[in-house]
Amino acid sequence: MNLHEEMIQMGDQALKASRELALLSSRKKNAILEAMADELEANRAAIQQANQKDMEAGRKAGLNDALLDRLELTDKRLDGMIKGILNVTALEDPVGKDISRWIRPNGIEIRKTRVPIGVIGIIYESRPNVTADATVLCIKTSNAVILRGGKEAIHSNQILARLLQLGGAKKGLPDYAIQLIQTTDREAVKELCQLEGRVDLIIPRGGEGLIRAVTDHARVPVIKHYKGVCHVYVDEHADPDMAERIIENAKCQRPGVCNAIETLLIHEAIAPTFVPRIVDFLERKGVKLKGDEAVRRMILQPMEHATEADWETEYLDLVLSLSVVPEIHAAIEHINRYGSHHSDAIVSENEAAQKTFVKEVDSATVYINASTRFTDGSEFGMGAEIGISTDKLHARGPMGLEELTTYKYIITGEGQIRE
Amino acid sequence: MNLHEEMIQMGDQALKASRELALLSSRKKNAILEAMADELEANRAAIQQANQKDMEAGRKAGLNDALLDRLELTDKRLDGMIKGILNVTALEDPVGKDISRWIRPNGIEIRKTRVPIGVIGIIYESRPNVTADATVLCIKTSNAVILRGGKEAIHSNQILARLLQLGGAKKGLPDYAIQLIQTTDREAVKELCQLEGRVDLIIPRGGEGLIRAVTDHARVPVIKHYKGVCHVYVDEHADPDMAERIIENAKCQRPGVCNAIETLLIHEAIAPTFVPRIVDFLERKGVKLKGDEAVRRMILQPMEHATEADWETEYLDLVLSLSVVPEIHAAIEHINRYGSHHSDAIVSENEAAQKTFVKEVDSATVYINASTRFTDGSEFGMGAEIGISTDKLHARGPMGLEELTTYKYIITGEGQIRE
Repeated sequence: MNLHEEMIQMGDQALKASRELALLSSRKKNAILEAMADELEANRAAIQQANQKDMEAGRKAGLNDALLDRLELTDKRLDGMIKGILNVTALEDPVGKDISRWIRPNGIEIRKTRVPIGVIGIIYESRPNVTADATVLCIKTSNAVILRGGKEAIHSNQILARLLQLGGAKKGLPDYAIQLIQTTDREAVKELCQLEGRVDLIIPRGGEGLIRAVTDHARVPVIKHYKGVCHVYVDEHADPDMAERIIENAKCQRPGVCNAIETLLIHEAIAPTFVPRIVDFLERKGVKLKGDEAVRRMILQPMEHATEADWETEYLDLVLSLSVVPEIHAAIEHINRYGSHHSDAIVSENEAAQKTFVKEVDSATVYINASTRFTDGSEFGMGAEIGISTDKLHARGPMGLEELTTYKYIITGEGQIRE
Repeated sequence: MNLHEEMIQMGDQALKASRELALLSSRKKNAILEAMADELEANRAAIQQANQKDMEAGRKAGLNDALLDRLELTDKRLDGMIKGILNVTALEDPVGKDISRWIRPNGIEIRKTRVPIGVIGIIYESRPNVTADATVLCIKTSNAVILRGGKEAIHSNQILARLLQLGGAKKGLPDYAIQLIQTTDREAVKELCQLEGRVDLIIPRGGEGLIRAVTDHARVPVIKHYKGVCHVYVDEHADPDMAERIIENAKCQRPGVCNAIETLLIHEAIAPTFVPRIVDFLERKGVKLKGDEAVRRMILQPMEHATEADWETEYLDLVLSLSVVPEIHAAIEHINRYGSHHSDAIVSENEAAQKTFVKEVDSATVYINASTRFTDGSEFGMGAEIGISTDKLHARGPMGLEELTTYKYIITGEGQIRE
């Protein structure tokens, strides 16, 4: 069997498993998840041994420290992975819930009911914990999952997938409900994305390069998260203390994540006092700043010039670009043009400005007087998230269990026909 | 400017218009729709003159009667088109409605609010009334629309699009909110489907060939309706009179539509009495029948053999294939395997069989004791539909106004930051 045929077989097996998964009760699915957690717990040493193989290979291959850190399954991360599975058992199962229900004048009853999507492909990079996290959310929602992890984590992913399968099987998880692509051949990603009719959805989790590679080949729907170029706009009517607190949190608390900000926009009416203040503050926090002409004129110290490319760069680092805008619409235009439609905030005490901002900024999450760092499934109260969508179709923003479902209409009659 | 540049410009114009459309109130949008209806009403003669050009060209080009019929804008169809616009004004505008709203323990308020999708491309075939129908639904939901109709309807589409623009402009419709691709060059379809970042969604409306052509090129999300291979399954516990009534309606009332059935599945326990009865009945109704071995053995008259290809064919005609199945799961497997996941019905008085059927049949709409012909936005009470989705992502089944929206999260705080 060549790769193409193997992938088709994998798709067929997943499709079959998905039909069986759709019949499992919530109670049964929770028992399966608990058995998975038990299996990981009982095999911590073996997992860490496999992980060490990946770490050694990574060191030999010269992976940088950040990558090696992502790869490593420490005791604490294993704890988190196992606890994460148990947390998901406590969440409400959306499958089978009615979204709405109505009766037509002719007496037919129409129910719009949540059902699993079917087969979901997850394509990810170096973090092996995605293997468990994503699988658990898919199984909880009765979706079969095909996993494709990064090649640097292959040993970790293989043992994790195997243990999840074994644990689940003890409580009746259908065969092939969880499949990991064993080859690290890049062609497999392409094949996976083209399994139309077998795979219902691809969720790539990784950097922009991965996402582009997936969308270039995809014939299956993809829910994407390109990047997080997020903004805070400090309005003319902002409380400067609040603005400073929000900017610090949004930039410095964890600069390497997608909901951290990359650009700060400041209304020109408040700029003469606010720009020197925030520049001093951020420099003391170790943030490297880049400014447009107006910003640079307002401060004494030298500052790097922000170029056109800066406005659309996701630094993922303690770097921030600053611009002064003549009025709120210029801020909105900047955000809609250069941003990634992820998370953007206005700091303002003025209700009209707040309304204008939330209405006109075309982003998944729009904040009034709060940090963009809240864009996260747990912070939103979803319990868990499979990712954050910067797409507009099907799901936008943090994706929890509901976003892993679709719906069907169930129509019940007593012999009604159309006139 | 070459075609590629022209299409990019069109996309940019649509994007700009979509931002302006998002700011219009429901009242304003309804005034725009009414002005569009008035404009069509005032120019009926000119519309029909343009339509006659298309009809003449169609006759010369040797279009068959069915195609010429689809193309023609009779008085009655113009009435329907204008009345359809006014009907949409009466529908509730989903834009701006909260889907849900909650407050987190830290005090931030999260609102999940319906917003327009943005820019929608509609690709359709010979029926010029789609120009008005689709445009009106897009404008009602504050989406800019790029229309690409069939070349045989180009004169009709041009005048309709122009009148809709003119009428709307009288009440403040933004420029470029409605754009019709003027060239009939097939390359334009390809270009349209690749306007990532400018076009948010493509809805193709037409035959399977058109849909395939669109999905082959698409880089923009597409909501598809491949075909309608729908089924009625007559269960062991069916009321035979009800089954006959439903089958007649589902096959004969309008055989050329997507929610008409193509295959009838019959439980073997009821087959010996039901098969001869329904075969006689349908033959009297002029339906051409094809049967599997079991069916052919149960009747005296000769019947064409249903081949593997028949099970997946959308006849769109008074043709029906019949199969006897040993039990309900065989029926479900047949439907999931050969069907198009559109509309499928069980006729049964048995509750367990009904439940099994609706749970396991993987279709957009699943019926218990009712005709599949109800899969339709109006019949569902949506007021209007832009199409029927056989996809699972974003929208499934009949798509009304809500399905032309997405959502954004609006988070309101008082300076909250993430701990």
